[in-house]
Amino acid sequence: MKTQLTVIKIGGNVIDNSENLHQFLLDFTALPGAKILVHGGGKIATELGHSLGIEAQMIEGRRITDIETLRVVTMVYAGLINKNMVAQLQAKNCNAIGLSGADGNVIKATKRPVKTLTHGTPPGPLAGTVIDYGYVGDLNEHSVSSATLASLIKAGMVPVLCAITHDGHSQLLNTNADTIASAIAVAMSDIYDTQLVYCFEKKGVLKDINNEASVVREIKAEAFAGLKADGTVAGGMIPKLENAFDAIKKGVGAVFIGKADELPELATGLFGTKMLP
Amino acid sequence: MKTQLTVIKIGGNVIDNSENLHQFLLDFTALPGAKILVHGGGKIATELGHSLGIEAQMIEGRRITDIETLRVVTMVYAGLINKNMVAQLQAKNCNAIGLSGADGNVIKATKRPVKTLTHGTPPGPLAGTVIDYGYVGDLNEHSVSSATLASLIKAGMVPVLCAITHDGHSQLLNTNADTIASAIAVAMSDIYDTQLVYCFEKKGVLKDINNEASVVREIKAEAFAGLKADGTVAGGMIPKLENAFDAIKKGVGAVFIGKADELPELATGLFGTKMLP
Repeated sequence: MKTQLTVIKIGGNVIDNSENLHQFLLDFTALPGAKILVHGGGKIATELGHSLGIEAQMIEGRRITDIETLRVVTMVYAGLINKNMVAQLQAKNCNAIGLSGADGNVIKATKRPVKTLTHGTPPGPLAGTVIDYGYVGDLNEHSVSSATLASLIKAGMVPVLCAITHDGHSQLLNTNADTIASAIAVAMSDIYDTQLVYCFEKKGVLKDINNEASVVREIKAEAFAGLKADGTVAGGMIPKLENAFDAIKKGVGAVFIGKADELPELATGLFGTKMLP
Repeated sequence: MKTQLTVIKIGGNVIDNSENLHQFLLDFTALPGAKILVHGGGKIATELGHSLGIEAQMIEGRRITDIETLRVVTMVYAGLINKNMVAQLQAKNCNAIGLSGADGNVIKATKRPVKTLTHGTPPGPLAGTVIDYGYVGDLNEHSVSSATLASLIKAGMVPVLCAITHDGHSQLLNTNADTIASAIAVAMSDIYDTQLVYCFEKKGVLKDINNEASVVREIKAEAFAGLKADGTVAGGMIPKLENAFDAIKKGVGAVFIGKADELPELATGLFGTKMLP
């Protein structure tokens, strides 16, 4: 039987609030078994960019990572947030080790190619627009070095990953933290019995977006298409759940989605939405 | 017989120049045996602080690390510089892993106590001044976790340390990189046959400060007092060499001091100044 490993992803709603973060890190430390934490960015990078006169450029709701923005996110994600989080975990007797994808070559990404939009038939107003997302990294099935992460865990450490990767040719890349968490969970499932926990601002997938009590407790892969069709899963939840079911298809045992402040119950399936094969 | 380990410290004169850094990292990668790199800061932190309206406060030539300055150095040292250096080493097939002292609890420091100056008899103009260096970490003989660093090396990784440590109670601390390199070399000499290399802007200890050809090739511990007395070692070199001889007294086999662009010859004792027991 394989050892259990829990991969947990947190975002800005935990990182930006020091009390939430403190409680979350206590709960994370108390979680039994092997674990890996993946964190996104939060407001700090936007605020630092603003202070330096570097304004976020967005195309279709996605941030463009130019070279100046890459410097900012590298400083904030890999430096300020990651090292403060590691220091806080160490104070709670969790032997955390903070990593970017470059460290120990744990995540090698590919710079997203420049693309030309071809939206719609007939083409919409953005058709023909050339989009260069800049220094953004995409992952594939060979991106994560599970052996290196496993060797750190076996040496008694808890990897804490920020959303910065590298391309193997000296270039750092900004990479979506949800995608990193999913790729790690998939890669580690060769070695561990792996589960993936996405913490976000809601208690789970809600039948009624305005009612936190309407959590869908369990979704099986075969039911996902139906929930998209009837509108239960909509908007930003669609890519999140597609990520989740993709991870399950590739070997992750279960994916949980819910609130960071309910981590103990979330990671054991008592609260939140559990996605299963 | 113990395996050989080389601990190398570089500073701003390498970090601030991308060509120098590239060449140095090639030479570092080519260096045989186990190795650890320690890097200081450079101009980037000062420039970032300036852009953010945080000006360096100095007392007696030493920078005061207030909370804002700590944020800046954490971002620049642990984020921007460390991760770019690691990505560059990875591209050169050196399996670097970037660390602050908090990561894996590899260096635990103590916040420098506030002190009252008592200079001179009769007391000088600064006597009675209360000095709070702020978030600065001092090291002791228990600061470095040699077992964790050794486990990373045995797993095939090359630790790259920035000058940020922690106090074990969630607080990050700015710590002198020369001191970190020395403390690591001392701690690792229980396990390895350790040598320490300080790269700086000169070819070594010079008999004549204006003549780069006047390198003192070798200094034994017993001769150090004489060289201070006759002025061969003066100014900023005194603490550097005191650090070096302190490391030797505590078990480091040899300390080399010289130019980063002569690393291959420096690390084998062909160039630079070699300090011996």
